[in-house]
Amino acid sequence: MQQDIYAKLSKLGITLPPVATPAAAYLPFAQSGNLLFLSGHIAKKDGLPWMGKLGSTMQTEQAKSAARAVAIDLLGTLDAACKAAGSDLNGVKRIVKIMGLVNSTESYTEQHLVTNGASELLAEVFGNAIGGHARSAFGVAQLPLGACVEIEMIAEI
Amino acid sequence: MQQDIYAKLSKLGITLPPVATPAAAYLPFAQSGNLLFLSGHIAKKDGLPWMGKLGSTMQTEQAKSAARAVAIDLLGTLDAACKAAGSDLNGVKRIVKIMGLVNSTESYTEQHLVTNGASELLAEVFGNAIGGHARSAFGVAQLPLGACVEIEMIAEI
Amino acid sequence: MQQDIYAKLSKLGITLPPVATPAAAYLPFAQSGNLLFLSGHIAKKDGLPWMGKLGSTMQTEQAKSAARAVAIDLLGTLDAACKAAGSDLNGVKRIVKIMGLVNSTESYTEQHLVTNGASELLAEVFGNAIGGHARSAFGVAQLPLGACVEIEMIAEI
Repeated sequence: MQQDIYAKLSKLGITLPPVATPAAAYLPFAQSGNLLFLSGHIAKKDGLPWMGKLGSTMQTEQAKSAARAVAIDLLGTLDAACKAAGSDLNGVKRIVKIMGLVNSTESYTEQHLVTNGASELLAEVFGNAIGGHARSAFGVAQLPLGACVEIEMIAEI
Repeated sequence: MQQDIYAKLSKLGITLPPVATPAAAYLPFAQSGNLLFLSGHIAKKDGLPWMGKLGSTMQTEQAKSAARAVAIDLLGTLDAACKAAGSDLNGVKRIVKIMGLVNSTESYTEQHLVTNGASELLAEVFGNAIGGHARSAFGVAQLPLGACVEIEMIAEI
Repeated sequence: MQQDIYAKLSKLGITLPPVATPAAAYLPFAQSGNLLFLSGHIAKKDGLPWMGKLGSTMQTEQAKSAARAVAIDLLGTLDAACKAAGSDLNGVKRIVKIMGLVNSTESYTEQHLVTNGASELLAEVFGNAIGGHARSAFGVAQLPLGACVEIEMIAEI
């Protein structure tokens, strides 16, 4: 029997943030059929862009924490997207895919370890059967507002 | 009542280009179910790649114009994709998602403002209900043929 | 009449590899409806990451070979994904889209030619009607483990 996701979040000490307000002229999510497409969310700390570049001003472990924080923000948006669709996080059938963008120098090669911060949080919250997902992770030249990490998500309800 | 998209384009002074010819061994779009996946389109000016790198050889406002031009090229391809599916732009149910790739130095952080050039055009043409979309925008090390901007799109018919 | 894909692979001298084991906390593929989302696969040579950066340590032709090798690895994963869905590669209705990430310096601009290594292989194996696909290709600052190329795929069964 499927565990209640909100009880799981509470047990993990996670409070869902309100749906993130996009920094520009787009929406936090869009639904098509059973798929919810969540916009790329940049890492934030105390409500401000969490700035940093891997390979120069930030280390892998700290960026992994930032990726985990982005995943929590994505869950806040996913919660709103599910509710807009007349469901909630317990109605998530599958986390389908995430794309992890890591602000990297030309020589930094641990984008997969950084993005694990998000992947592991999703598995903790939803379990492997629902939370297990496809993924791409790579190093980008820069991100909006200088953020260290940006992640987008596709989920199925 | 849904406004006619072609009348709207005409009112905005936009002439749809013919479907872009890919620079390589792939197709300008592919359909799966109700979803149309449009290939990444690079910015062009006078039919040639619109070259530039943000943070060095190009400013935000000019690249925003380039992103708007890419969106118009995407609409040309979307028109062809809709017609191949037996519909037209008036049959677009939703612009689902775009991905905005901005040719950036390691220090340029306004990729979201650049990509607004495309997002705002889509909202102008389709209105917020249909034209509103999820989005990721980020800075890439380089783009094919040195283009300043590349954008891909997913739309639902 | 649709040619047998396994016979075609054999004729091309291609042996499908076993499904790639992700380098981190995610799955090689996830299914949603008729769509199979394959994770980004990095280029490998003799089982190790195929390292290189275009514009400095690697040339276009070699990276094109690497992209072809990634496409073969993707077919190994696609074969497993199809079988998990109760089908096989002959049940692939469409290669919908690939995303080609090319490890590039700030000045290298032939990402489309590199990614052709994958696109051409897909057309050879599936033919144009099924193998033709939408695509984005761009230059990234770095890739996990220093790989020269990473490609993700969406296919329809």
